[in-house]
This record gives sequence, C-alpha cells and structure tokens, in this order.
Amino acid sequence: MAGIKDVAKLAGVGVATVSRYLNNSGYVASGTRLKIEHAMSDLNYTPNELARDLYHKRTKIVAVLVPNITDLFFAEFVKHVEDNLYDHGYKMMLCNTEKEHNAELEYLDMLKRHMVDGIITGVHSLDADSYAALDKPVVALDRYLGSHIPVVTVDHKTGGRMAANALIKSGCKNILHFQGDTIVSAPYHERHLEFEKEIRSHNIKINNCTLEPNRWDTDYYRNLVRDVFNNFPDIDGVFGVDRIVIEFMNELKRHNKKIPEDVRLVSYDGTFLTNVVVPELSCIVQPIDQLASSCVSLIMQQLEGKKNHMHKTILDVSFRQGQTTTK
Amino acid sequence: MAGIKDVAKLAGVGVATVSRYLNNSGYVASGTRLKIEHAMSDLNYTPNELARDLYHKRTKIVAVLVPNITDLFFAEFVKHVEDNLYDHGYKMMLCNTEKEHNAELEYLDMLKRHMVDGIITGVHSLDADSYAALDKPVVALDRYLGSHIPVVTVDHKTGGRMAANALIKSGCKNILHFQGDTIVSAPYHERHLEFEKEIRSHNIKINNCTLEPNRWDTDYYRNLVRDVFNNFPDIDGVFGVDRIVIEFMNELKRHNKKIPEDVRLVSYDGTFLTNVVVPELSCIVQPIDQLASSCVSLIMQQLEGKKNHMHKTILDVSFRQGQTTTK
Repeated sequence: MAGIKDVAKLAGVGVATVSRYLNNSGYVASGTRLKIEHAMSDLNYTPNELARDLYHKRTKIVAVLVPNITDLFFAEFVKHVEDNLYDHGYKMMLCNTEKEHNAELEYLDMLKRHMVDGIITGVHSLDADSYAALDKPVVALDRYLGSHIPVVTVDHKTGGRMAANALIKSGCKNILHFQGDTIVSAPYHERHLEFEKEIRSHNIKINNCTLEPNRWDTDYYRNLVRDVFNNFPDIDGVFGVDRIVIEFMNELKRHNKKIPEDVRLVSYDGTFLTNVVVPELSCIVQPIDQLASSCVSLIMQQLEGKKNHMHKTILDVSFRQGQTTTK
Repeated sequence: MAGIKDVAKLAGVGVATVSRYLNNSGYVASGTRLKIEHAMSDLNYTPNELARDLYHKRTKIVAVLVPNITDLFFAEFVKHVEDNLYDHGYKMMLCNTEKEHNAELEYLDMLKRHMVDGIITGVHSLDADSYAALDKPVVALDRYLGSHIPVVTVDHKTGGRMAANALIKSGCKNILHFQGDTIVSAPYHERHLEFEKEIRSHNIKINNCTLEPNRWDTDYYRNLVRDVFNNFPDIDGVFGVDRIVIEFMNELKRHNKKIPEDVRLVSYDGTFLTNVVVPELSCIVQPIDQLASSCVSLIMQQLEGKKNHMHKTILDVSFRQGQTTTK
C-alpha cells in the first residue's frame, strides 16, 4: 500500500509538504497541491486517519455509557444520541457498564488517554469523586457529578406531581409507590419526593417499595410484584417506571383484578412498551429524543472549546392519558 | 503536558529508546527501563494511545451495524456483542444505519482507512457488491455478503417448521403469515419458505402478508394490523416476528376475540416482549446471546490473522410454549 513517502516522491516534494497539505496546516502552493493530488490519485493513496487524528489530537469518537442497553429508555436514548453525533461527524462508542469490572472507570481512563474525545454518561454506579479532577468533555444524563459537569434532566418534580394527581383524580385511597434507589446523587429523586408529598397532602395512604439498583431481569420483577401484591392486596393505585408497572399490571390480570376499576396505574418514562401493552398505560412521558439532542449539543460545545453556561438543562415532561386511569 | 521527548530527556536516553520501551518493540536494558519508568512517573506522563495504536496499526475498535437499536432483537444482540468484545479487550462502535445517508458505506470506508479493526453487520440495506473486494475482518449476522465473509445465523428451516406445527397442532385452518422482505440475500427467508411449505402440505389455507423493510414505528404496525384484520376477519392462526404478532394480538383484543380459542399466535425471535405481554406468546426463540458470542469469536479469529473455516455458523432455535397456542 502506498504511503506518504511514496506520494512525496512521485510528486517531487518533501514529506513535510504532503503532511501540510493533508492536515491543511500551512501554506502549500497551488501547483504543488496539484502535483500532490495527482500523485495521491495515481497511487490510490488513502490518508491514514489514525495519523491525521494523531496530528489533530482527536478521535471524533464520543463514548456513551449506559447501565443496560436492553432497557428501552436507554435503547431509545442511545439511538437518538448516535443519530445526533453522526450528524455532527462523530461516531459513538457504546458501553454497557453493568459488568464484573468497573467499566465506567476504564472509560474515564480512555478519555484521559485521548482514546475518545468526550463522554456522555447515563450510569449511576461510580461516586462523583472520580470525575472531580477531570477537565475533559463530559455530560451527565440525570445525575450530579460536580459543578463542572453539565446535567441534562427533566422536570421530575412536575412529573411526580402529575402522576400523583392522575391517581388522586381517579379516586385512589391506598397507593403503592415503586421508587429508585437513592444511593447516588441524581435529579430523579425529586419525582419520588414530590409524588409522596402530593399524595400525603391529600391524606391518602402511600406504601413505598424501593427497587434494587441495576436489576433488569424479568425474574426479578416477577418475584418482586408477586411478593408486593401479597403484602398489599388492597392497594388501588400504583406508580413506578414503565417496566415494573407493566409487570404489576400482569400480576393484577392473573388475579382477575379490573383495570382501572379496581386498580389504577401510572408509569414513568413513556417508552413504547406503554403503547404495546393492553390496556395502554397512562404515563409521564420523558422527551427521550430531546434528552439525547441536549446531551449531544452540550458535548459539542465542550469539544469546540466553548463553556457550557447552563449547569443544569431541564426539559418538560408530559402526561399521556392511557386506559389505566380515569379521566 | 509532558511528551515522549520530555521523558527521554529526563531519563537521559534517546526518544527511540523510550519508543521501544512503550511499544515493547525491541531490547531495552533493565537499568534503562527503570530510568524511563521513573521519568514517566515524575512527569506524570501518560502514553498517547493514538500514537501507540498508530504504531500497531490497530484501534481495538469493532464497529457494529444494526438497522435500529430500539428493536429488541438488536438491542439484546448489541448488548451481548459489547459484553463479548469487552472481554476480548475491544470496544464497540455502534451505528444505527437507518439514516438519510448511507451509513453502512461510510463504515466500510472507515474500515479501509484503519479507523476500526473490523465490522459485525446485522443490516440488510446495501447490496453485497460493496463487500466483494474487501479483504478485512467482517462478520455478517443473518445475511449473505459473499463466500469470503462468514455468516452467523440460526436453523431458520427448523424454526419455520416448528412454528407451522404449533399452529397445525392447535387446529388452525386459515393462517395469516407475516413475512420479511426478500430484497437482500439472507438465511432468514428459509423460515418463511419452510413455514409455508409445511402449512400447505397439510392442506391448510395460508395468506401471506409481506412487511415493508426497515419500518419500526408503532403507527405502521397498528395501521397494518387494522387493515389486515379487516381483510382477513376469519383467520384462526398467525405467525410473524414478536412485534407484529403482539400488535395483531392487541387488535384481536379490541375485537373481543378469544386467544387461543378463536385465534392462535406464534411469534419469531422470543425477545423479552413475548414474556411481558398477557397472554404470554408461544414463540420460536433465537439464542441471541449465542449469535452475539459467535459473531465476536469469528471476528476475533480474523483479527488474529486466522482463517474462518466455517462459512456459515448455524445455531439451534427452540420452541417456547406460551398461552397463545394449545398444547
């Protein structure tokens, strides 16, 4: 395969001149340009991108970290992130961080070693200390990693209130609330706090059930809903993320409970699963496409050396009326 | 930031020696090694991975191309591919190829230009000609790209026969068959041919409905099942991929049809959706984790310079009894 030396030789110029031409990094006379182009064409020479990236000290790759790509919230997020990065001429390196080894830490190390240009992280495993000294492009999805790292999130407080009001309006008196773990510092806790506050302010009974972090297997959800249903046979309203609420709905069907007459359901996220099940779920919808495009915009600003002026980007959620609450 | 020249200067050795040390590419005396290590430590020097990869002419990145990551078959496939690549010390670059531009072609170009070391492709968009002259590591999931590119697939013929027999045994007399497009050359056509052959051999009526290629939106599926249900109100058995069969099941529910008494359903793929819906779907299960690990094994062989002796790797499918067929 022809190399830069062959091009230089055939064009009758120095290697440094060809390098200047390829990297657009200094003056090359137009006659010389033509000679180089002819030589490249004759030799069928393709510039080695690794060498060019080395010169520019960038890879044009952004790493995206999610706990599990098979969770539909993350699948949709990743799809839109990749589309947006692609439009900016960047490629996406994807990592499921739920592994034996600490993959998140490894990717931080890759960022330091110039193997990727930036990181968009949606994982909640490491503590924020690992990011403290990092002066590189990083954007966090729904997680606080320090004042120097921008966060993209939704208005969870309004989301929690909307969910509570949908159940209250449907006449619930005894509510089951599936909530995420509170181990890491993250904006999403607000929806749980606001949901509970709103329910309590109406003197309605609420039972909280905290999900184990980073569990994605159907068996876990099945066993959990069976236990919870046995412990709380009289609940008449349920709130949680799409997946757990759907499993609970299935458990209700197995016990011949009527939805929404006996039990009302509201889920959080609004992934396409909520439209695939029957009855369709009433849900709080996160604008996943906008979360993705905001993350990419912010990382692009950092890659271009601009400062992100907004530490926290908060997008609107909406309530979608399904068939599991009354109007 | 310290560079290799600073390390060489502080260690009192030449740049070429430091380079030999870093790339493990020639003799460096143990005393010299110690000096270099001390200098690197004192200067907090991190080897530039881009430079090292340039030397080794590899990126340790494998590109994975899928039409749409939000389709659960591909989401599960990608998750397992990433896990397997990670275990081999490789990172995954992921591309959704359903874009305005021809992303598949762009990735082939990246492979030629040493920006990725190999490609695992699960897309069915380009014709195989683009791969004809390619002498680089490529593995195809369920698609024929030429005799030089290994294919990983399942025993679709058996899968199609299993599906037919489940519907026949359940007493179906008028079957609706959703099939994929036949534009590209791919092993999966066999399941449709075998399914139809088996049904016809039992003198059972079969109606074929071909899905548009690369459509993933819920609206498309909804409108399609509505039309098809109106055109074939008397069908009593349905076969197709998970997603379309689930939408058809929802349409049946809307018309108060009983499952499996009025209509029996068998789906193909066996993604977790089939367990999430009620009633649970009877389905042909593709071993997605094994498809992924086989693709990664084959690409690793190629990356290590070994020849793949098997052009076609065929994995077993299995039938999972759900509640949509009778035993």
